[in-house]
Amino acid sequence: MISIPTIKRFPSYLRLLQYYKEKGFSWISATTLAEDLGLTAVQVRKDMAGTGVEGKPKVGFEIAPLIDAIMQNLGWDQPTDAILVGAGHLGGALARYEGFASYGLRIIAVFDNDPVKIGMKIGTITVLPMKELRQYIDEHSVHIAVMAVPAATAQELAEDLVSFGIKAIWNFAPKDLKLPAYVIVQRTDLATSFAVLSAKCKQLLSCGQSAKNELV
Amino acid sequence: MISIPTIKRFPSYLRLLQYYKEKGFSWISATTLAEDLGLTAVQVRKDMAGTGVEGKPKVGFEIAPLIDAIMQNLGWDQPTDAILVGAGHLGGALARYEGFASYGLRIIAVFDNDPVKIGMKIGTITVLPMKELRQYIDEHSVHIAVMAVPAATAQELAEDLVSFGIKAIWNFAPKDLKLPAYVIVQRTDLATSFAVLSAKCKQLLSCGQSAKNELV
Repeated sequence: MISIPTIKRFPSYLRLLQYYKEKGFSWISATTLAEDLGLTAVQVRKDMAGTGVEGKPKVGFEIAPLIDAIMQNLGWDQPTDAILVGAGHLGGALARYEGFASYGLRIIAVFDNDPVKIGMKIGTITVLPMKELRQYIDEHSVHIAVMAVPAATAQELAEDLVSFGIKAIWNFAPKDLKLPAYVIVQRTDLATSFAVLSAKCKQLLSCGQSAKNELV
Repeated sequence: MISIPTIKRFPSYLRLLQYYKEKGFSWISATTLAEDLGLTAVQVRKDMAGTGVEGKPKVGFEIAPLIDAIMQNLGWDQPTDAILVGAGHLGGALARYEGFASYGLRIIAVFDNDPVKIGMKIGTITVLPMKELRQYIDEHSVHIAVMAVPAATAQELAEDLVSFGIKAIWNFAPKDLKLPAYVIVQRTDLATSFAVLSAKCKQLLSCGQSAKNELV
């Protein structure tokens, strides 16, 4: 089992390795990786040990197999299908975000319970009604759901999703979910991130609109 | 100074308070807030103390002043202007994401160095060339920049932004920035979030495309 901190660094390694590969390099040293990512060479070697790819003295790691191994460890080597629930502003942006493709995430269906949104097209995907969730998850054997719904409906929806067979939830709703321990939950909350930035900015630097007036 | 954990909870309080306000309530108890958010009443009272709004025995907190106080503490009571750098898929999605408005964040300009993107419209905003960054920041007294650029260019861009007068950076680039301590940096990395979800899913549950075949 690879540690979570190592997994968190894998996407950065991946981008760097792909960059060097595109530049025509075939081998890379732990020292180069370490310098580029601001890590110690010892940490890089530990992280690389988790991939199963062994380095060689003087030349370091062969780039192509290392990319493959990291992709495989992340589960990014084959497309992972996910459904997205919530076709609001954030849901719409996530459904259209093509960057997911580079890490193998494929949004195959979008659900909402707003009659105005049902039937609407987001890119090539048609928004389906929530009442079809159970059948869709069952028929397509989807295990991952991306939730972009309001806080108020998040817990109930998450419980439904789990009962329909969802095993992993990427939660963009601003709400901590209480779910059985076997369910994998990853939370990303844009409002909370901005709250911290905004409050620090206000407290420490008097950021914001008023600053312009202060200068007058 | 309000603690970071309290600030992180403020957006959740805010949504809940707005929900109760819309339902016609004027007062709310610490116990109700605590139950809805999965916190202890003691924690809620501590958090509320930071807002300066005092609760009253039996009735609790008056909702409207509490909303105002939290908004003010977060700096969300007045619009905060920010620029966005990077008009790729994520940058485009962020520039279009109307949810930012509810926490007072207003993207007033988008910059990119790709000639194809410069002059392009994202909603009502025209993409400007990076070479105009310095002048724009100066003329508009902007203090916050949202960065949605590739990892490879993030550090250099961040240093430029700081030298142009930016004080706070919301970094969506998959790269830890090394900046002077007085610069406020908040990082949101979608790839890293998904990496953790995807790797756990693969390791623990054999999530992903192969699951369907296993069932056959």
